[in-house]
Amino acid sequence: MTRNAFDEAVTLQPQADGTFIGNTHTAWWNMVGPFGGITAATVVQALVQHPQCLGEPAALTVNYVAALTGGPFYIALRITKTNRSSQHWMVEMQQIQSDGSSALVLTATAITAVRRNTYNGTDVEFPRVASADSLTRWDPNQVGMEWLQRYDMRVLQGPVPDFDMPPPASGSTELPHSLTRQWVRHAEPRALDYTALASMADVFYPRIWRQRHTWVPAGTVSMTVYFHADQADLAATGGDFVLCEAHALAFRNGHSDQSARLWSATGTLLATTHQLVYYKD
Amino acid sequence: MTRNAFDEAVTLQPQADGTFIGNTHTAWWNMVGPFGGITAATVVQALVQHPQCLGEPAALTVNYVAALTGGPFYIALRITKTNRSSQHWMVEMQQIQSDGSSALVLTATAITAVRRNTYNGTDVEFPRVASADSLTRWDPNQVGMEWLQRYDMRVLQGPVPDFDMPPPASGSTELPHSLTRQWVRHAEPRALDYTALASMADVFYPRIWRQRHTWVPAGTVSMTVYFHADQADLAATGGDFVLCEAHALAFRNGHSDQSARLWSATGTLLATTHQLVYYKD
Repeated sequence: MTRNAFDEAVTLQPQADGTFIGNTHTAWWNMVGPFGGITAATVVQALVQHPQCLGEPAALTVNYVAALTGGPFYIALRITKTNRSSQHWMVEMQQIQSDGSSALVLTATAITAVRRNTYNGTDVEFPRVASADSLTRWDPNQVGMEWLQRYDMRVLQGPVPDFDMPPPASGSTELPHSLTRQWVRHAEPRALDYTALASMADVFYPRIWRQRHTWVPAGTVSMTVYFHADQADLAATGGDFVLCEAHALAFRNGHSDQSARLWSATGTLLATTHQLVYYKD
Repeated sequence: MTRNAFDEAVTLQPQADGTFIGNTHTAWWNMVGPFGGITAATVVQALVQHPQCLGEPAALTVNYVAALTGGPFYIALRITKTNRSSQHWMVEMQQIQSDGSSALVLTATAITAVRRNTYNGTDVEFPRVASADSLTRWDPNQVGMEWLQRYDMRVLQGPVPDFDMPPPASGSTELPHSLTRQWVRHAEPRALDYTALASMADVFYPRIWRQRHTWVPAGTVSMTVYFHADQADLAATGGDFVLCEAHALAFRNGHSDQSARLWSATGTLLATTHQLVYYKD
């Protein structure tokens, strides 16, 4: 039995010097390199696999410094501080070149923490949307990127624009124009964990495409993920659909932001995540 | 003529080894150390003052690793990558101890970028609120933290709760329960720049206090700021009030998030910013 393509992509080999070596995976190809979400997930995998990791991922910021291309890479992690119930990390990912040298492709900081029993609450409403089962799967062949085949997506609002068609009429004046809402699960069944959540945080196409209904070069520069789910939430979600919604607030001088929420089908806010996205023109 | 207390607090002395040395400032004292916003501002000051800085601050993530206390500190910056129009940074702040040793208090990553002439837009409405001039200044002596004296705040919604009183009735069911909206400007007149924006991004009290109407220990663990304003926006704002609004989405197992927007009085979205906040109980 072959392993799930997600687990294959985030497989890391611990090295004697404390680093981890991985390899890009063609199943997760975007345009010129792997999907940014799977790269972020690889960083989370290195954290949770680290023998000195205290607690679980709470916050992650990844900065996409240069394009990762096909081949091996290593991840170097440094614990900058261990407190009683939390830990701070600095992370670098380097692409290993054919001549043995390496080139920086990603920097990150992360905070892992022991989840404690406290007051819990949510101050945003779980949107009333159609269930995933009532919708058909979005056809990933509409956009020729291999990684889109890895997810079963059911689009509620804001599909990838068809730039050959006029922009669709706005469905609601109450929702942000740039909003996309979609159910997402792994196409090959796989239970949700922090590694998988990090990848889903980056599952949206650039908001500038929706805002302008025009294709322009765009790419994530920096992504921050706040992990709210605990192990019970992850276990309850299992391989079920996750409601992923994203919108932008500002498009200014070549960069936009993006804010997103990832919900379980039963209304638990699993993660909130934010990006700075480069765009041209 | 004495300098503005803000400029005094972010004053940095470049060192021969490329680091910058600063000193905490009692005018910005919080409870056991300086206000986190002024510390973040000091990092931005180091970036913009760095002789090799390309462009202007676009994204910043600061991680509060350990408590900064009174005294000198140094900031070490490393350019991890310079692209054609953007630059990636890793930053560390170390408190300098009396014996000459140092201790890490903050890590950060940042992206600076050359602002380009592109499509600009905003996909969130500037809230219709009362003007700052129509409101009286919030009395900073209500809460005994020195830094609150440094800002002239006019509260529209969600003042610091009076825990001796019952929780106020919710004003509107359409607004998030944890929302605070306030006009903020420097009490000593000072023009807005990226350094000042970074400080204002952290101007809110912990959302858990508002959510529960109960005082619990709480503090920012990580803050990300996306700077949307360009120099013309900053110049147009000058020393005028900035509308600062913040709310939380999730309170889970000892951490909450916080999302905030900083607007000019004329409706320009100057920055969006997000935090992970620790809380007890």
